[in-house]
Amino acid sequence: MKLVIKKELLLDGLNKVSHAISSKNLIPVLAGIKFDLKKNKLTLTASDNDITIETVIESKEKDDFKVEEEGSIIISGKYILEIVRKIPDKFINIDVVDDLKIMIYTENSEYDLNGISENEYPSINLEESKKKIEINSKVFRESINETAFATSTEETKPILTGINFKITGNTLEFNSTDSYRLARKIITLDKASDDSYNIVVPSHNLLEFTRIMDEDDKAFVELHIFNSKILFKYKNTLFQSRLISGTYPNTSNLLPDSYYMVISANLNELYSVIDRASILTSDKDKNTVTLETSGNTLIVKSNSVEIGRVEEKMGITKNIEDDIKISFSAKYMMDALKAFSTDTVEINYVGEIKPIILKSKEKENLTELVLPIRTY
Amino acid sequence: MKLVIKKELLLDGLNKVSHAISSKNLIPVLAGIKFDLKKNKLTLTASDNDITIETVIESKEKDDFKVEEEGSIIISGKYILEIVRKIPDKFINIDVVDDLKIMIYTENSEYDLNGISENEYPSINLEESKKKIEINSKVFRESINETAFATSTEETKPILTGINFKITGNTLEFNSTDSYRLARKIITLDKASDDSYNIVVPSHNLLEFTRIMDEDDKAFVELHIFNSKILFKYKNTLFQSRLISGTYPNTSNLLPDSYYMVISANLNELYSVIDRASILTSDKDKNTVTLETSGNTLIVKSNSVEIGRVEEKMGITKNIEDDIKISFSAKYMMDALKAFSTDTVEINYVGEIKPIILKSKEKENLTELVLPIRTY
Repeated sequence: MKLVIKKELLLDGLNKVSHAISSKNLIPVLAGIKFDLKKNKLTLTASDNDITIETVIESKEKDDFKVEEEGSIIISGKYILEIVRKIPDKFINIDVVDDLKIMIYTENSEYDLNGISENEYPSINLEESKKKIEINSKVFRESINETAFATSTEETKPILTGINFKITGNTLEFNSTDSYRLARKIITLDKASDDSYNIVVPSHNLLEFTRIMDEDDKAFVELHIFNSKILFKYKNTLFQSRLISGTYPNTSNLLPDSYYMVISANLNELYSVIDRASILTSDKDKNTVTLETSGNTLIVKSNSVEIGRVEEKMGITKNIEDDIKISFSAKYMMDALKAFSTDTVEINYVGEIKPIILKSKEKENLTELVLPIRTY
Repeated sequence: MKLVIKKELLLDGLNKVSHAISSKNLIPVLAGIKFDLKKNKLTLTASDNDITIETVIESKEKDDFKVEEEGSIIISGKYILEIVRKIPDKFINIDVVDDLKIMIYTENSEYDLNGISENEYPSINLEESKKKIEINSKVFRESINETAFATSTEETKPILTGINFKITGNTLEFNSTDSYRLARKIITLDKASDDSYNIVVPSHNLLEFTRIMDEDDKAFVELHIFNSKILFKYKNTLFQSRLISGTYPNTSNLLPDSYYMVISANLNELYSVIDRASILTSDKDKNTVTLETSGNTLIVKSNSVEIGRVEEKMGITKNIEDDIKISFSAKYMMDALKAFSTDTVEINYVGEIKPIILKSKEKENLTELVLPIRTY
């Protein structure tokens, strides 16, 4: 293998695949990135057994890169990334000599690294499915960010550490829950799917995938779903993740058909009021606050015997004259509010011991649910 | 105690004294900030036994604050800081009722905190000395940043965890060393000191003190030196630290009178070359690189049997034709170079097993020394 490549192009590719390099990996070859050079295409692959990322760097402009000899080799991911990041030159030469000795050089810098033969790399099937599902990449990225935070981090309930994708016809539903709260986003596909799917993808892997997406809001993500894995295709990059096996709980029965009271509030103000009301709660994991209405005033309170008490007020509108009172985790409510990023939000109240449902007229396809906490 | 105060003023004062609040403190009263309100002056004090900070908030404009009742109380540092930071209002009311109940409120927010009687606060003497030493605050801050990094972090050699201040006449010398490297800065005082001093101030405390200084480069820092403590006065803030007892090693004999070779280099380029040459060094604490000259070319090399080797080159000028070779810790050399922040730097070479001395014509009062490492 022998090539000259524009530094920025190589760095961009290395940054993408390095999301699949784990420093904790016990298999030495997986600490490496596979370079595969053929004609005017350099394919980089990295995998940590849980996810695999492959990206193709193609020459678009005349001087992007020059292939002098095709070939393949595995290079240490950590070192090649740091070298390419720190080299000040515009172009980088990479030569493989004596089979496994890698020379990376520019005019004033030379790095000799020990490589690993490509034969030692595990064979990973990144084949695409014939039945792909296409989603606008911006909508996809937003949907993951609106739901991922509500997944569980406890490995004792593996199924809840993933986001549930439910596809039927032209509807794709994202569900997440850690059994104290729930997030649901429903999007409409441009092209209906022939098959129905009900799969669970590790939340952590989906977040890694969104991090390799750029700001382009006209691009598409393709979903290729298999029995135990899912392959995402985004531009020149493939991202494959395992699926979590098991049956995802049916959460639809938690969402009521009608509400006793609908409170409309400015989202930023409500967020800040709950944030301030939770300052004095002693235990950060159980930072319970109480919300009550008094006419068109919303009052959020908390108190701790040792530290003291808080009372915060703000103006709201509501659909009925009655007043209500309900307690919940400030952290969970704030996480849910943050997911909307809209100007206003509606708090839908069913009863003091019933789930609180958050909706926004500005984002009708998103539903967030927070369970109340009994305080007596 | 009862007052109305402009939020920004109070927040600024709380931020300053909070540098002396330690979450690890075992004495509950020291987790608090002492508020002392007299006439148009609010004095805030915090202490962690190691350092004490006192700042005075004075009313400069008509509506800065309104004192309705003088008094003193100790308020939890953690909570008052978070409350004042998050309150959106321009003015904050603080009332002490029933002796120890603190009410902090604005139009829509109310916080009731449990206070501690000021009688429980340890008595801390912040008296000034009659013999003060004055230094421009920018020069002082720079001197600390140019020397603090070379102090030891090992508690087994307490004297080396501080910066040595040596004052004689109108000369103030800052020395620091961890026994592998050394930094020396010499500044000239506007007004000579009657007495001579040779003290050691904990490096960590000095860095905390520089963090409460602002960008104002015309202000002064006053040093009030006592037997076992030092009091710094900067604008409306007092900062007191203990001194480290013991005799500071005499480091002057480490600095040679003349050099065999003087190499002049661009500082940023030299820093980057050493940084890149150290990428492949396996042990981050002992990242040894070798520097050699070949005419007007400087070559920096490193190698690791498992990973590979690097060679970096750059142009330099030197005063004699001979060529040299010397090895050192890349990290220590980079720390020393960073302290200069000048365009060029001189590497002064005495011999392969003699200390390397760094100087810069642009900053003649700073000397950095790095010990070489034997590689054979």
